[in-house]
Amino acid sequence: MDARGIHHLGVAVDDLDEAIETYARLFGGKLERRDRLEEQGIEAAAVRVGSSRVELVAATGAETAVGRFLARRGPGMHHVAYEVTDIHDALRALAREGAQLVDEEPHAGLFGLQVAFVHPDSVHGVLAEVVSNGG
Amino acid sequence: MDARGIHHLGVAVDDLDEAIETYARLFGGKLERRDRLEEQGIEAAAVRVGSSRVELVAATGAETAVGRFLARRGPGMHHVAYEVTDIHDALRALAREGAQLVDEEPHAGLFGLQVAFVHPDSVHGVLAEVVSNGG
Repeated sequence: MDARGIHHLGVAVDDLDEAIETYARLFGGKLERRDRLEEQGIEAAAVRVGSSRVELVAATGAETAVGRFLARRGPGMHHVAYEVTDIHDALRALAREGAQLVDEEPHAGLFGLQVAFVHPDSVHGVLAEVVSNGG
Repeated sequence: MDARGIHHLGVAVDDLDEAIETYARLFGGKLERRDRLEEQGIEAAAVRVGSSRVELVAATGAETAVGRFLARRGPGMHHVAYEVTDIHDALRALAREGAQLVDEEPHAGLFGLQVAFVHPDSVHGVLAEVVSNGG
């Protein structure tokens, strides 16, 4: 599967507003969108940094996946998302190559994206996400 | 300071050859360059993934910064590098904004780049690097 590039770097943060401000101040980051997914327990901001994108993700509570990540490891890099042309094709190709999929089917992620995660055990400790726009 | 975008995502790995193969197989990664910096105790591969770049970094020994990172946290995301137009200007701007600089002056990094690191305490737990090509 040929990814089109890094769609975003996902970073877990304790305080979303403070992190948006830090990225603006240090790297010229510009807030692109903000979104909240109650069922996944996250509130997030997409921040453009030049031609790239950082997704700042905060937990809506301690008993959420990101809340547990923050308690265990502290704030820091959480996942990297690769943009793909067709997410169904990408997941089939990944499965064929023996990658351990967290999501066998894409689901609705932040910002209207279709997303699916690949287990870090298949990617040398990196939680990877594949994303496509819509469909 | 306005970064031009993510120059690369730095990933610490145990086995460089195996990681290069994984990125090729799962994401269509293409080996761009390979380099070794004895004095920093690292061997690394720049891998293009679509329009982006992942820098896979292995330690040349246990008693190196990356060796200790691997022993403490296991393989995974290590740093994110932002490309800047002028690294001296960028470091001045970061210092002015109160960022804690690991390197007050740029030094020669992998692949002939000029690099400097910003302490994770200033970037919500993310070790950040600024890079520019040459001088």
